[in-house]
Amino acid sequence: MRHGNILTSKQLSREDIETVLDRANELDGDGSALAGEYSDTLLGLLFFEPSTRTKMSFETAMKRLGGDVVDMGAVDSSSITKGESLADTVRVIEGYTDAIVLRHPKQGAAKLASEYVDVPVINAGDGAGHHPTQTLLDLYTIRETAGLDDLTIGIMGDLKYGRTVHSLAYALSNFDTRQHFISPESLQLPREVVFDLHQEGASLKEHESLDPVLSELDVLYVTRIQRERFPDENEYQKVAGEYCITAETLDDASDDLTVMHPLPRVDEIAPDVDATEHATYFEQAHNGVPVRMALLDLLLGEDDE
Amino acid sequence: MRHGNILTSKQLSREDIETVLDRANELDGDGSALAGEYSDTLLGLLFFEPSTRTKMSFETAMKRLGGDVVDMGAVDSSSITKGESLADTVRVIEGYTDAIVLRHPKQGAAKLASEYVDVPVINAGDGAGHHPTQTLLDLYTIRETAGLDDLTIGIMGDLKYGRTVHSLAYALSNFDTRQHFISPESLQLPREVVFDLHQEGASLKEHESLDPVLSELDVLYVTRIQRERFPDENEYQKVAGEYCITAETLDDASDDLTVMHPLPRVDEIAPDVDATEHATYFEQAHNGVPVRMALLDLLLGEDDE
Amino acid sequence: MRHGNILTSKQLSREDIETVLDRANELDGDGSALAGEYSDTLLGLLFFEPSTRTKMSFETAMKRLGGDVVDMGAVDSSSITKGESLADTVRVIEGYTDAIVLRHPKQGAAKLASEYVDVPVINAGDGAGHHPTQTLLDLYTIRETAGLDDLTIGIMGDLKYGRTVHSLAYALSNFDTRQHFISPESLQLPREVVFDLHQEGASLKEHESLDPVLSELDVLYVTRIQRERFPDENEYQKVAGEYCITAETLDDASDDLTVMHPLPRVDEIAPDVDATEHATYFEQAHNGVPVRMALLDLLLGEDDE
Repeated sequence: MRHGNILTSKQLSREDIETVLDRANELDGDGSALAGEYSDTLLGLLFFEPSTRTKMSFETAMKRLGGDVVDMGAVDSSSITKGESLADTVRVIEGYTDAIVLRHPKQGAAKLASEYVDVPVINAGDGAGHHPTQTLLDLYTIRETAGLDDLTIGIMGDLKYGRTVHSLAYALSNFDTRQHFISPESLQLPREVVFDLHQEGASLKEHESLDPVLSELDVLYVTRIQRERFPDENEYQKVAGEYCITAETLDDASDDLTVMHPLPRVDEIAPDVDATEHATYFEQAHNGVPVRMALLDLLLGEDDE
Repeated sequence: MRHGNILTSKQLSREDIETVLDRANELDGDGSALAGEYSDTLLGLLFFEPSTRTKMSFETAMKRLGGDVVDMGAVDSSSITKGESLADTVRVIEGYTDAIVLRHPKQGAAKLASEYVDVPVINAGDGAGHHPTQTLLDLYTIRETAGLDDLTIGIMGDLKYGRTVHSLAYALSNFDTRQHFISPESLQLPREVVFDLHQEGASLKEHESLDPVLSELDVLYVTRIQRERFPDENEYQKVAGEYCITAETLDDASDDLTVMHPLPRVDEIAPDVDATEHATYFEQAHNGVPVRMALLDLLLGEDDE
Repeated sequence: MRHGNILTSKQLSREDIETVLDRANELDGDGSALAGEYSDTLLGLLFFEPSTRTKMSFETAMKRLGGDVVDMGAVDSSSITKGESLADTVRVIEGYTDAIVLRHPKQGAAKLASEYVDVPVINAGDGAGHHPTQTLLDLYTIRETAGLDDLTIGIMGDLKYGRTVHSLAYALSNFDTRQHFISPESLQLPREVVFDLHQEGASLKEHESLDPVLSELDVLYVTRIQRERFPDENEYQKVAGEYCITAETLDDASDDLTVMHPLPRVDEIAPDVDATEHATYFEQAHNGVPVRMALLDLLLGEDDE
């Protein structure tokens, strides 16, 4: 992985994933073991789209490792508006920094960038494409709570458009998991994703309601249903209400159920869930730091593992 | 104060104030004594409203202590626009940083945030509410120039809407001060503030003109009168002109008079005042650094004082 | 130069230029020699106009020296919109930082700022005025590739409005160079610039086409022709096409020709030039880091040179 790029979730083998998660586990809460190693390291942050948690989490990870960042800033206060190509921008910035984290609205942007520069490029989201570090922190959270093998997971909400969900499903097919997909019919997993998952040997079932599977689940991964996907407001209201989790919903769940969400949430998990033992979404967000520390350390570190 | 929050000026006792100001005095110009202690400390900056000096001053203070910051950035380049609640945002960010500085347009925001997180929250302005670190730097400036006891202070300008003024007045009522409030009738101190100050035993008088009291003052604290408060432009012009300080105005003042202003100023202090010995507003702004260093040190430091 | 300001390119003598370039050469790729010297140094970044490479390059330079920055951020998220004067803003910020880098839309802004503060001010572009650190990195790039003496350089594109070009031309007149200026008639060098250059004893010629001089050139410095300069779109298209460099254009050039551009480029250098040995514009951008490190070191360092 050293001096490579992190572009897609599909690129990650089971061994790669376990290497990152093991390193994250070592660094979690004790990054100071590395003190000094990264004091000369600068990470370039290129966010062409708004982001709070991904960007802050990368910045925190680099700083907790003892390094620093150089941030391009918001696109409208950069000279990007003068019409410079992405290839030119990244070729300039590779002269400033030791690695580049890139979020961009266009699918394939991170891959394109990686072809023009010699420093590692980490994809922090490329439109409808991939967001592999989100997948890694999801996997880390699952491994720390329910374990990745002999896992029964429900993935619920907008399964059609959510890149988070597709990446997670592909990654989970590396492990011994039973995946249940719960969504309104109009927001089902795309057929090609289902096809690919079957090809990978994944065990999966699709449902329109959570009820029949809730009690079996070790993990329930909830995603947001976006209002703008629905031509008709009434249709949205009906669906949104049905795919909203409350503390009461979880009465039928296992005591050990882990509830996850990539955040930000709007209404799909009610605030009364926060106080239950199930709520793991804030911990999940926090796990972005050790996971990204691990990734940066594996990409940039001097030692061989 | 350790591991607590800094939410309002009213929360600060005379003893608290003196602890902060004494520490600020020790750190002023020599923060290097702490070198190393904060090398692993990250301060989260969450500014939901524009700010230059408060934000830069907190960032400078943390960095002068040897720590670093993680900045959420401008709201329109964050995912806040996706409708996330403040409670969710701060619960995510507490996983990244060791303390949170929050500016928010809604009164009570900092208090609400503090109820959801375990890290210290510092209120950097909550709408019409409080801005306690501004009050502390004002008090520090007064103590360094005129002293906080046996003080005669004039506070002039918009006394109705200015949160800075109310906080300062409450804080000063902890000390032996005579407070003169100078404003047009329409921008007088709110009656409930006057009532509270009397309850606290403060010595105060209200005036519509500076003339009768100027010569008695040790400190003149000027604030901006905002055009938009006036339905009639002529009315504004009349008032704004009367409450504008020039070098000539100060001919009748004591040689030792300290002129302060929370900045930014527009017309209420003429540029010719800058060259006089009275002008202390830039020094006042600079004092934000040692005062915020002291506050961070008292909130985050490992030793007991 | 120590504790002075860097305001214009004209201010820089040949000796000053060589001092900066020599120091840049020492620091290039090995800033760690200075480790520790700048650990308490904070550089203030005040960019009142969008910038990517200049700002990131200053930030990188300060951090590679071991210091840190405090960034005012985008103007629309600062309190500048409340109408504060530049003189007030810089007087506040000098209390936070050890030096100020200023970009501002108004010519003369950096000079004005320097009159109000005691810390060094570095002009990072003042409207139609100067951008001396761009000139220094251009000179560094030329010295590292073709050498600054016995140099034949072609400067092509918009020579009328480009401040980059005027600054470079003035600076080059300190050295033994032959300068060829290539542009459409409507975008020629202003007559007063030509006059000044002649006064400085510069050797210069003006052309409307690159063809007659290409083969003689050691360096070809290309700048962008801005569409908005032309009242008529057809006129723009004709001119833009003629002053666009492709790999084929360069068939007639010397093998050693260095092609430079201040970036961002749009169409004036075709992508197929990037793969040729001539392309030096990304290296040129990267040279901003050692040059700005050198400048900061010379302005802020403790030793005498």
